[in-house]
Amino acid sequence: MFEVHGYAAKSATTDLVPFTFNRRDVGAHDVHIEILFSGVCHSDLHQAKGDWGNSNFPMVPGHEIVGRVKAVGSAVKKLKVGDYAGVGCMVDSCRTCESCKKDLEQYCQVHTSFTYNGTEQDKTTPTYGGYSTDIVTEERFVVKISDKLDLKATAPLLCAGITTYSPLRHWKVGPGQKVGVIGLGGLGHMGVKFAKALGAHVTMITTSEAKGADAKRLGADEVLVSTDPKQMEAAASKFDFLLNTVPVSHDILPYLMLLKLDGTMVLVGALTPLDAFPGGALMLPRRTVAGSAIGGMAETQEMMDFCAEHNIVSDIEVVDMASINETYVRLAKNDVRYRFVIDMATMPKG
Amino acid sequence: MFEVHGYAAKSATTDLVPFTFNRRDVGAHDVHIEILFSGVCHSDLHQAKGDWGNSNFPMVPGHEIVGRVKAVGSAVKKLKVGDYAGVGCMVDSCRTCESCKKDLEQYCQVHTSFTYNGTEQDKTTPTYGGYSTDIVTEERFVVKISDKLDLKATAPLLCAGITTYSPLRHWKVGPGQKVGVIGLGGLGHMGVKFAKALGAHVTMITTSEAKGADAKRLGADEVLVSTDPKQMEAAASKFDFLLNTVPVSHDILPYLMLLKLDGTMVLVGALTPLDAFPGGALMLPRRTVAGSAIGGMAETQEMMDFCAEHNIVSDIEVVDMASINETYVRLAKNDVRYRFVIDMATMPKG
Repeated sequence: MFEVHGYAAKSATTDLVPFTFNRRDVGAHDVHIEILFSGVCHSDLHQAKGDWGNSNFPMVPGHEIVGRVKAVGSAVKKLKVGDYAGVGCMVDSCRTCESCKKDLEQYCQVHTSFTYNGTEQDKTTPTYGGYSTDIVTEERFVVKISDKLDLKATAPLLCAGITTYSPLRHWKVGPGQKVGVIGLGGLGHMGVKFAKALGAHVTMITTSEAKGADAKRLGADEVLVSTDPKQMEAAASKFDFLLNTVPVSHDILPYLMLLKLDGTMVLVGALTPLDAFPGGALMLPRRTVAGSAIGGMAETQEMMDFCAEHNIVSDIEVVDMASINETYVRLAKNDVRYRFVIDMATMPKG
Repeated sequence: MFEVHGYAAKSATTDLVPFTFNRRDVGAHDVHIEILFSGVCHSDLHQAKGDWGNSNFPMVPGHEIVGRVKAVGSAVKKLKVGDYAGVGCMVDSCRTCESCKKDLEQYCQVHTSFTYNGTEQDKTTPTYGGYSTDIVTEERFVVKISDKLDLKATAPLLCAGITTYSPLRHWKVGPGQKVGVIGLGGLGHMGVKFAKALGAHVTMITTSEAKGADAKRLGADEVLVSTDPKQMEAAASKFDFLLNTVPVSHDILPYLMLLKLDGTMVLVGALTPLDAFPGGALMLPRRTVAGSAIGGMAETQEMMDFCAEHNIVSDIEVVDMASINETYVRLAKNDVRYRFVIDMATMPKG
């Protein structure tokens, strides 16, 4: 074991403090990453505050982790010392269940070890996340990052990126399709970039005209203001696919009505109850609603390679580790375009 | 034009009365069917009572119509005088839109002419349904029925049959799949028969142990009592496909939890608002909810041929035309296994 500096919530709070803890030594299948940047996901704030009722403390948040490989175990094949590498929302899974065999470790039927506020496969040892200087992770749960990309802007790809890429690929979004991305935040801005790179005609569906303008800068072909009933009516039954990134409970009916025959809306944000909607909206015409959670490790690597090929990264603002609490205040106000990333070089070491 | 005897609701009521009206003369593309039997769908009762707020009177209900071809127009190819034939929920559509070109006339983007309480393509002339002695319908909206089948028991195939057959086929239900049919009524009992004939392992999901026993007689391999939390928990994440035939607003969450990774639940009954459910139930694992309405005419013919091949008909109880109001009282109490069919030979003619 070796000592690592980090920042932790010691109890349900938005006030994180310096925290020193241990990481395991590098095993045969492990990769030791010196963390250079760690993205700040809205779920970090929710879990630090204990909003979802499943928080364990002390908690070191962070599941958008990128850095440089510092050491590898004897059996590691995919990575070598000096490579850029990343760790996302998971650090382990059972690897033997039906889901894991399909490379869908996020749906492990036994136990997914989430990167923080979770436990290792022993279901006892707590996991600590990316607001720290180093991490040791089994090779399967580490992705290689091309040095062609701006490393700090790749951090959000590990959560916001894969969460949007995976459903676009699973539902085969591509040329000739009319795709809507609902909500422009950390997830939505990646959804626009990916849907565009996959060849679809992309509409940003947002409550705000101003965000719409920014979405066009990101690659959206059109903007649909969801608070304008005339625009919404004119767009009825026009979309093949909708990526719904709204992170809170909401009424999905106005969006459902935008789907054409055999169109699909995929929820990637709202875990909490959706407003009641009539079953008839799914029947006439035949429409689908589905959900999707992050993506498997093989697909995360595929996404990272796709990003290198298409020069896609996240739009970020770099912040210092010691300013995390102010950063959370801004995050709560959605005052970010579109993801905060902590520069780990700013970690206080004393 | 020629005169036809029928039964109609003259206003929002459950009290139908004899009603004489005109049918059009047989055009070049038309088929004149002497109606021998007409199924009684629960929606007949809803619409006669004006429950859905879209009722027009006088209304001649009935969209599960079977009989003998009495005359055909000069251009008709599929049917000849003396054939058994059927008409379902639709009698026309625009035939040129994207949906119609895909043989999905029920999702016509211009105007579907429903068999009753609708209008012809002129959007003015009212349509009158199967509680009558004769109907004249364009060939595309008439299916041929094998004389190997018991004609009276084929009537419900035109609505309850195609409504359940279509989603099972569209979502490719077949061998090796674990399929649940939720609710045992007119639709559910056909769902069990079709899912079984398609080779799936079929579970009847019902609130009632007694209905479960009957479902086994119909071909179900297993019964899951949805009011038993232990049984529901043991069945969590076990189903590939669920056909939800519940015709009223309800909580779909307990059923969603039965779906495995990439499993799909299709709603065919509940047009009205579903209870709020958490988006997270669709995300972990990735699950789908969709809707489906009846089926296109080509698929309805395919279903009718499938029924002839597999000797599938509906379980029915034959009633007299003049007893329709008592029949509605029993229908409202779900006192039917599983579909009432009116014998049109009992139509008062005077």
